[in-house]
Amino acid sequence: MAENPYMARAIELAIENVRSGRGGPFGAVIVKDGRIIATGTNQVTSTNDPTAHAEVVAIRAACAALGTFQLDRCDIYTTCEPCPMCLGAIYWARPHRVFFGGTAGDAAEAGFDDAFICQQLGVPLADRKILFVPLMREEALACFRAWAASPNRINY
Amino acid sequence: MAENPYMARAIELAIENVRSGRGGPFGAVIVKDGRIIATGTNQVTSTNDPTAHAEVVAIRAACAALGTFQLDRCDIYTTCEPCPMCLGAIYWARPHRVFFGGTAGDAAEAGFDDAFICQQLGVPLADRKILFVPLMREEALACFRAWAASPNRINY
Repeated sequence: MAENPYMARAIELAIENVRSGRGGPFGAVIVKDGRIIATGTNQVTSTNDPTAHAEVVAIRAACAALGTFQLDRCDIYTTCEPCPMCLGAIYWARPHRVFFGGTAGDAAEAGFDDAFICQQLGVPLADRKILFVPLMREEALACFRAWAASPNRINY
Repeated sequence: MAENPYMARAIELAIENVRSGRGGPFGAVIVKDGRIIATGTNQVTSTNDPTAHAEVVAIRAACAALGTFQLDRCDIYTTCEPCPMCLGAIYWARPHRVFFGGTAGDAAEAGFDDAFICQQLGVPLADRKILFVPLMREEALACFRAWAASPNRINY
């Protein structure tokens, strides 16, 4: 397979990230109209942010660069198949395509095992490893009523 | 059920968030040792960040406040059952418990339907709504080799 320059850049960034000690071995590049508009690397440990996976960092940067919360006509190149958090972020950001290098299995072999999160999604609340407890549902529904009634509503 | 002050605060923040036009009808509060250490509301549209759901905003703020990437002994109170992205973020942040108000069904009724993301997690890559394409796996595995060899490695 011919080398893809965007994926090659993502790999380069991931390796630099490890060497500099900034975080885990993951990189991502976001491309629109043939141009790299944002990059991201894993910064969980260096920024104390468990959500700072390469894809999330890149999505946030790309949206900031574009001034929008949607990645229309953008492609994401990531060095590894996204974890469930990043997959969710990708669906909310709505890019065109996602290209990935390593597989979830490769990540698990390297010590990054997110299979337990996928597995937990299918487990009833009461049986999950982190306890999920329903509380004050009736009161909380007031939030949705306020939304329905709001003249300031911007759908997303 | 007696009113829980943390959930009541999350609901109050969500409603304020809607009224001010800053974002969607969601709020979250993170509590450690009986004290609120961070709060978050949905800021997707006001900050152009599709990852700025209430839980993610609160997790990032709590980790910043604590100076750590793990939410040991913390409880999260969120006005609605977390979407898959937020659920992933919660598992990476590892709090003790999660209390939620509205259910995923309530959110869907209010127009916030993340069921398609859960569904997509179980769909083969080639059949997903957003195309996921494997690319340069062999080259990408160099990232994990760099990680295994790195003296700067901080596990997370």
